[in-house]
Amino acid sequence: MRKTTLITGGAGYIGSHTALALINAGHNVLVLDNLCNSCRECIGRLELLTHTRVDFVNGDIRDPILLDDIFSRYDIDAVVHFASLKSVEESVRKPLDYYANNVAGTLNLCRAMARNNVFQLVFSSSATVYGEPTRTPIAEDFGTGKPVNPYGRTKLMIEELLTDLCHSDPRWSIGLLRYFNPIGAHESGMIGEDPRGRPNNLLPCLTQVAIGRMPELTVYGCDYPTVDGTCVRDYIHVVDLAIGHLKALEVLQHHSGINFWNLGTGIGYSVLQIIQSFEDITGITIPYRFAPRREGDIAKCWADPSKAGRELGWTAQRDLQQMIIDTWRWQSCNPQGYQSSFETPVLSAVK
Amino acid sequence: MRKTTLITGGAGYIGSHTALALINAGHNVLVLDNLCNSCRECIGRLELLTHTRVDFVNGDIRDPILLDDIFSRYDIDAVVHFASLKSVEESVRKPLDYYANNVAGTLNLCRAMARNNVFQLVFSSSATVYGEPTRTPIAEDFGTGKPVNPYGRTKLMIEELLTDLCHSDPRWSIGLLRYFNPIGAHESGMIGEDPRGRPNNLLPCLTQVAIGRMPELTVYGCDYPTVDGTCVRDYIHVVDLAIGHLKALEVLQHHSGINFWNLGTGIGYSVLQIIQSFEDITGITIPYRFAPRREGDIAKCWADPSKAGRELGWTAQRDLQQMIIDTWRWQSCNPQGYQSSFETPVLSAVK
Repeated sequence: MRKTTLITGGAGYIGSHTALALINAGHNVLVLDNLCNSCRECIGRLELLTHTRVDFVNGDIRDPILLDDIFSRYDIDAVVHFASLKSVEESVRKPLDYYANNVAGTLNLCRAMARNNVFQLVFSSSATVYGEPTRTPIAEDFGTGKPVNPYGRTKLMIEELLTDLCHSDPRWSIGLLRYFNPIGAHESGMIGEDPRGRPNNLLPCLTQVAIGRMPELTVYGCDYPTVDGTCVRDYIHVVDLAIGHLKALEVLQHHSGINFWNLGTGIGYSVLQIIQSFEDITGITIPYRFAPRREGDIAKCWADPSKAGRELGWTAQRDLQQMIIDTWRWQSCNPQGYQSSFETPVLSAVK
Repeated sequence: MRKTTLITGGAGYIGSHTALALINAGHNVLVLDNLCNSCRECIGRLELLTHTRVDFVNGDIRDPILLDDIFSRYDIDAVVHFASLKSVEESVRKPLDYYANNVAGTLNLCRAMARNNVFQLVFSSSATVYGEPTRTPIAEDFGTGKPVNPYGRTKLMIEELLTDLCHSDPRWSIGLLRYFNPIGAHESGMIGEDPRGRPNNLLPCLTQVAIGRMPELTVYGCDYPTVDGTCVRDYIHVVDLAIGHLKALEVLQHHSGINFWNLGTGIGYSVLQIIQSFEDITGITIPYRFAPRREGDIAKCWADPSKAGRELGWTAQRDLQQMIIDTWRWQSCNPQGYQSSFETPVLSAVK
């Protein structure tokens, strides 16, 4: 059997871009996804893009029998683990679902890996584990803080249990990838972010306003101590992020123990700067209004990505303009996300 | 059906003393315990002590079908949740077991409670959630810190998920009881602490040396900045602790949301002071030797228990002498723990 990389949550936004990067780099991949916030159609798009069959299992990481079955049927040597719930707002309303899916799910996955002698894992973590940082840029050696919502707490708990796991057993090689703010989409316009229900993040909201599905954009807070009063974030192109996973997998093959890497560009942009760039690039005016600050939002946050540079040989290559062009191409080609019948990219959609 | 309090881990050390306190206060109790670190014999002893039948289920909190069965067969209105693994040293070697039993187990219990409309919970937490406190006595409003081992992290994670749960749904009433260092035993000598395998805590080690099952006591660290260089802790009589649970249950009936209470005496004793008291009370000389500090041990730690005093009407009543007398009575009457055929307390065992 050919060595296979298991990608949990591989039909989701970052998971699908990572699956594509891995397949393009010659990996055999198996996607496991329960489709609770993603679409089977995404797998079809991956097959179109890669001209290969993409093995897919519709199932849940919390099912130990399914996991044992997968590990017995495929020769899996590493796992890239994305499967998790990811809405901050929903995590406040339904914390048990978040702890069960994210924390207990990861536990279940690790136990199945250990039973089946698979010890390489790349985990989809988040800059949220830093809590409210006292300064920027944020480096890995700041140590973790106190995340401000249940979603963030699940990410930190998972980081902690994976760290304990590595300390308990030298066979484990684990990479914790702390994402900053992923945006963008594959340049083909065939895969991208497709949030179910009302989007929460800036770019999905912005594009929904641009195509007329939402009347205006709400900007939370205009009095932060930043360049223009709005929150500053480190936006990173999802394709760069996906390549970070590929690099991490390569390094983990000869680098045991627990490893932490920030994946960001090191550059912060404010909400108003993003809106302005979007307007400049697309020629579309975005109506917006200011609303009060949201609880738990920090003023500014961007990465020191130099550790990933040194240890993974990775740096983000795609700039903000590319992120916006690719986001907009995806949205224009797929106004209803994966429910849209895919149209050949109309490049005139981008000014 | 009569209202019943479910006690998970009710055959364990603190659980059994709490079961006794609740039964003596007129509660109907059901003990659920998987006996992985406790004995069925403990339930028999509770029945002897209370002259009542004690309902017992041999099972695991991680079994959702069993939990639903229990909630359907008994009219449970509150849960006191002790079931957990508790060895710091083992948690370092087997972190997945600790996260699965403690965190995922508690999640499973809460989901079963919610399905069955039971929203009152008292949770067995620990002062370990304060991490390395910068000063003593420790009050609840210090906020939690970073626990120094996987066992401690499971306690903090559970506190956090229960806090999020209360914030998400006003029907929940949850009390987090942060224990300091429970020692002692019921004055009957019939129930007490019965660690399986090699004990880790001071008093069980001390009594095993006293009865000749261990040759000498190891004292970790003699150069701490304390009265005599050894670690200082807040020892609390397990019967006082048990009464704290009874008080918490009463208060939670009309006090919704999340509640934190320290259960300690507010007095710190050093390891050498405990040894000296034990020798004075029993007349037995305890050979001991100093060893290097253990990683993760803090120099001194004692409670500010005034919040429990104000809000629960609870203060510890039993002093160190009583704790040592009762510990020694239990150990003398049951040299092999619950494996011993119980002998009527020989009061001459206490000088």
